[in-house]
Amino acid sequence: MSNRRYHWKRLEQFVAQVFQRSGLPPEEASVVSESLIEADLRGVDSHGVVRTEIYVQRLEKGMVASGASMQVMQDGGLTLLDAQNSFGAVAGNRALELALTGARQHGLSIVGVKNSNHFGTCAYYLKKAVEQDMLLMVMSNASQTMPPTGGIRPFIGTNPLAVGVPAGRHLPFMMDMATSVVARGKIIVAAEKGEAIPEGWAVDAQGRPTTDAQEALSGSVLPLGGPKGYALSMFIDIMAGVLTGAGFGKSVNNMYENWAQPQNVGHFFIAMDIGRMMPVAQFKQRMDEYIEDLKAEPKAPGVNEILIPGELEFRREQERKQQGIELPLKVQQMLSSLGERHGLSLTDTEIDESAVYE
Amino acid sequence: MSNRRYHWKRLEQFVAQVFQRSGLPPEEASVVSESLIEADLRGVDSHGVVRTEIYVQRLEKGMVASGASMQVMQDGGLTLLDAQNSFGAVAGNRALELALTGARQHGLSIVGVKNSNHFGTCAYYLKKAVEQDMLLMVMSNASQTMPPTGGIRPFIGTNPLAVGVPAGRHLPFMMDMATSVVARGKIIVAAEKGEAIPEGWAVDAQGRPTTDAQEALSGSVLPLGGPKGYALSMFIDIMAGVLTGAGFGKSVNNMYENWAQPQNVGHFFIAMDIGRMMPVAQFKQRMDEYIEDLKAEPKAPGVNEILIPGELEFRREQERKQQGIELPLKVQQMLSSLGERHGLSLTDTEIDESAVYE
Ligand SMILES: NC(=O)c1ccc[n+]([C@@H]2O[C@H](COP(=O)([O-])OP(=O)(O)OC[C@H]3O[C@@H](n4cnc5c(N)ncnc54)[C@H](O)[C@@H]3O)[C@@H](O)[C@H]2O)c1
Ligand SMILES: NC(=O)c1ccc[n+]([C@@H]2O[C@H](COP(=O)([O-])OP(=O)(O)OC[C@H]3O[C@@H](n4cnc5c(N)ncnc54)[C@H](O)[C@@H]3O)[C@@H](O)[C@H]2O)c1
Repeated sequence: MSNRRYHWKRLEQFVAQVFQRSGLPPEEASVVSESLIEADLRGVDSHGVVRTEIYVQRLEKGMVASGASMQVMQDGGLTLLDAQNSFGAVAGNRALELALTGARQHGLSIVGVKNSNHFGTCAYYLKKAVEQDMLLMVMSNASQTMPPTGGIRPFIGTNPLAVGVPAGRHLPFMMDMATSVVARGKIIVAAEKGEAIPEGWAVDAQGRPTTDAQEALSGSVLPLGGPKGYALSMFIDIMAGVLTGAGFGKSVNNMYENWAQPQNVGHFFIAMDIGRMMPVAQFKQRMDEYIEDLKAEPKAPGVNEILIPGELEFRREQERKQQGIELPLKVQQMLSSLGERHGLSLTDTEIDESAVYE
Repeated sequence: MSNRRYHWKRLEQFVAQVFQRSGLPPEEASVVSESLIEADLRGVDSHGVVRTEIYVQRLEKGMVASGASMQVMQDGGLTLLDAQNSFGAVAGNRALELALTGARQHGLSIVGVKNSNHFGTCAYYLKKAVEQDMLLMVMSNASQTMPPTGGIRPFIGTNPLAVGVPAGRHLPFMMDMATSVVARGKIIVAAEKGEAIPEGWAVDAQGRPTTDAQEALSGSVLPLGGPKGYALSMFIDIMAGVLTGAGFGKSVNNMYENWAQPQNVGHFFIAMDIGRMMPVAQFKQRMDEYIEDLKAEPKAPGVNEILIPGELEFRREQERKQQGIELPLKVQQMLSSLGERHGLSLTDTEIDESAVYE
């Protein structure tokens, strides 16, 4: 079994089936698997189908609810969504719908979400918003992985901040970033390969700077740019956690470690109807102009092209839709055995090499 | 003339008088000087009274308007303010008022500002909002100082992002940051002292990494965390520039270099009435709990206390209000000669050492 490649749509259906047969209603199963596949397509593998197993385990242990009836409280453009411990992607998807409807009605809307879970890659939500000419900001808090400036152990999460903005001829602007220097996933990869990590990425369990990936994993990832990343992460925790009624700081539970309580993750969405500020066509023309100016800038040696945020991931998505999603052996084995438990075959989702290269 | 210390309120009045006698209406003069003094009090000296001369010059050359009647267009919680080339602080202050009124009415509001100018330190606006139990986000674009990832010369600004959130017993959360690794001001200081700068702060005019402060000044400051800072800066430019109708990217003019055109800076304010999401008392209690948890974290060697964003600046403000604002010789001379032109004495604003230590 090498790094086989899988057809994105068939893989998505496979994962949805796994969730369904583990007890998730069909609509919820398909939202969660769609979000995971979107991450894999965009090359954010750390938030892709690699999460299938932990999600299934949380579901089976009753740590995540299935088919919960989420509660909505609204006051004009402000919405509070109690996700009732649904999967993060299910809650996030509902929040997105509420945010877009709110923005269409009020020009501007926010949706705070409490009692939710890990909701995957933010880009999943951005993509749906920009397709409807909406401007969307998405934030989520996460369990503790980074120390505050001056601290030595994890206290805040790598809380992601994401913004999607449509353009005209050009790709939408899709900024989607963790507030850490790098994703923890990159340190895991280095540790597996036995490689060192650059200084500045992480500290060890005593809070000392380290270039040893293994030491870094038992320590903490560092916030982006020191106090600035700490401030950004705390800001997101305030919006997604303090303000919504969700957990914040140490009360956001780790999904891998805490099997006694739900995560109580919080999310925060801000949506804006661009057309209420400026005619959409004019706005898109201005975006195109901006992007063209950027791309026309002189480039550093070895750089072929200046990219806009999201462009790299968009290209990967096109490529992986055509050539398949490559999964490492470990992930293949995990999915395969989950499939077997439910009479599903992972092999059926593989790309047919001969067909592709015929 | 050594680094004399000046009484903040008397200095504020002096600067306001300078602006007034240079042709600014009293209300505008006092807003601009209040904003500059606020920066000096908080230790953001680069955005303090050091800017008095360039502001006066822009005013006298007709590059900034005085007493313009700004235009307001409103649609529910969305406001577009055409600042008609007023001073940035004047436009920003008006935008703040509109944002707070909008949030009180709709729960949530945004104000986009076009045809504005350099508006100083964002904290000036945050402070007024948190005093009224409002949550405020402030952004502004700025003239070109940073290359995009892969570029070699300045294209985007160090566009600041700021968020103010009230707490209860504790100080408000006040994140206020440029999207560059460090403020350009720190490189200017190093250059004046003939010191080297750390790698990663800047590139030279050919886009090559440099530790030479002088070379860095003729090159570009680097965005915070590479592509992440580039994405953040572009996001701010989109909100404050593309969406409002202001300049963006290369069409935001440099106030020191371009004497043919107004700057056309854009700002973007998002205000939220906390009480519409959660009872304010409960929210503040949650903020206090968060801050106390943070402060109780174990500390790195040599660290006495974990600070929350804005705390350092708050302490400086208390200190400088008591002990005076120390100004470097160059700034004293500049203010002194501006004063002389208008029959005002800078010496009158000095702290009376004997009175203080009596
Ligand atoms: N749900 C959670 O709890 C959680 C927590 C953290 C991160 N995440 C997700 O993890 C994912 C990865 O985050 P990350 O910080 O590692 O992303 P990253 O560092 O790979 O990318 C960050 C941003 O920079 C842009 N970018 C990168 N290189 C660029 C270049 N050369 N030119 C222009 N733009 C460029 C990307 O398009 C992206 O918008 C995101 O999808 C995020 O939502 C989720
Ligand atoms: N108007 C403009 O065009 C423009 C452009 C750029 C910057 N600015 C202003 O410049 C000012 C300085 O920006 P900067 O990026 O150099 O600020 P900075 O790097 O000094 O601080 C950034 C943030 O980090 C926080 N912080 C710093 N050290 C901390 C610590 N140890 N613990 C906790 N928090 C800590 C600060 O309180 C602040 O909120 C800001 O007021 C900004 O508004 C204005």
